[in-house]
Amino acid sequence: MNIKYMKEALKMAQKGFNKDEVPVGCVIVKDEKIIARATNLKEEKKSSIFHAEINCLIKAAKVIGDWRLDGCDIYVTLEPCIMCVGAMINYRISNIYFGAYDFKGGALSSNIKILDTKGLNHYPNFQGGIMEKECSQILKDYFKNKREK
Amino acid sequence: MNIKYMKEALKMAQKGFNKDEVPVGCVIVKDEKIIARATNLKEEKKSSIFHAEINCLIKAAKVIGDWRLDGCDIYVTLEPCIMCVGAMINYRISNIYFGAYDFKGGALSSNIKILDTKGLNHYPNFQGGIMEKECSQILKDYFKNKREK
Repeated sequence: MNIKYMKEALKMAQKGFNKDEVPVGCVIVKDEKIIARATNLKEEKKSSIFHAEINCLIKAAKVIGDWRLDGCDIYVTLEPCIMCVGAMINYRISNIYFGAYDFKGGALSSNIKILDTKGLNHYPNFQGGIMEKECSQILKDYFKNKREK
Repeated sequence: MNIKYMKEALKMAQKGFNKDEVPVGCVIVKDEKIIARATNLKEEKKSSIFHAEINCLIKAAKVIGDWRLDGCDIYVTLEPCIMCVGAMINYRISNIYFGAYDFKGGALSSNIKILDTKGLNHYPNFQGGIMEKECSQILKDYFKNKREK
């Protein structure tokens, strides 16, 4: 884990904020190099699949040229949902690092612990709470703005 | 549930078979009309996200023009994985109908029962085992061919 990558993910969350998307950002790292960056684009694309993590995984697979992302780590500012954890398993992500906990939709350690399931094809390691305050603050700011509008 | 839609999903599975993809097919139905059809394209796209269900959900959202697919039913020949069930929740799919059970990766009733989780944003109904024999047979044929090659 290197906190500098979460700082880069947070920049992608800010990009989402500026586009009026729920501000979640993500980067994927292989061999100490960022190979993909993405923000949430659900509103822009009018499609529920396009979470920051999914956009980033699609980009990374294009870079690697394989459906397996062996040795790749993902840094995301918010605890991933069921869909995104499932995608990370399918892509064989090595390590998942997330910022803020999502007590409602989080699928690693909050609402559901997907990786406690037996018999999965792959088990990424994960660690949460990295730059939690900053990752959480940008979401709070976004929803505060929304309510005031 | 109308079995004619599973027959259409099975045609999409055959399309996958012909492309040397794991043969899973899917259709999405709204108001008794098929609005999207898709097959698995994981190998062609070299990317783990592109399961039949995800390809079909992306197409359906383009047709509807919204990230919510309220009132839409999905017919898929194989029990969906964690990622795909998560996506169906995110898109607010009304009913999930699947053919063959996936005892290893199935996330509705086989390996993990995602919809038993409390506090989800949405709970689709689901029913499995529709045209189970046919949906299962095409997968068996595919893997038999693979082993023989």
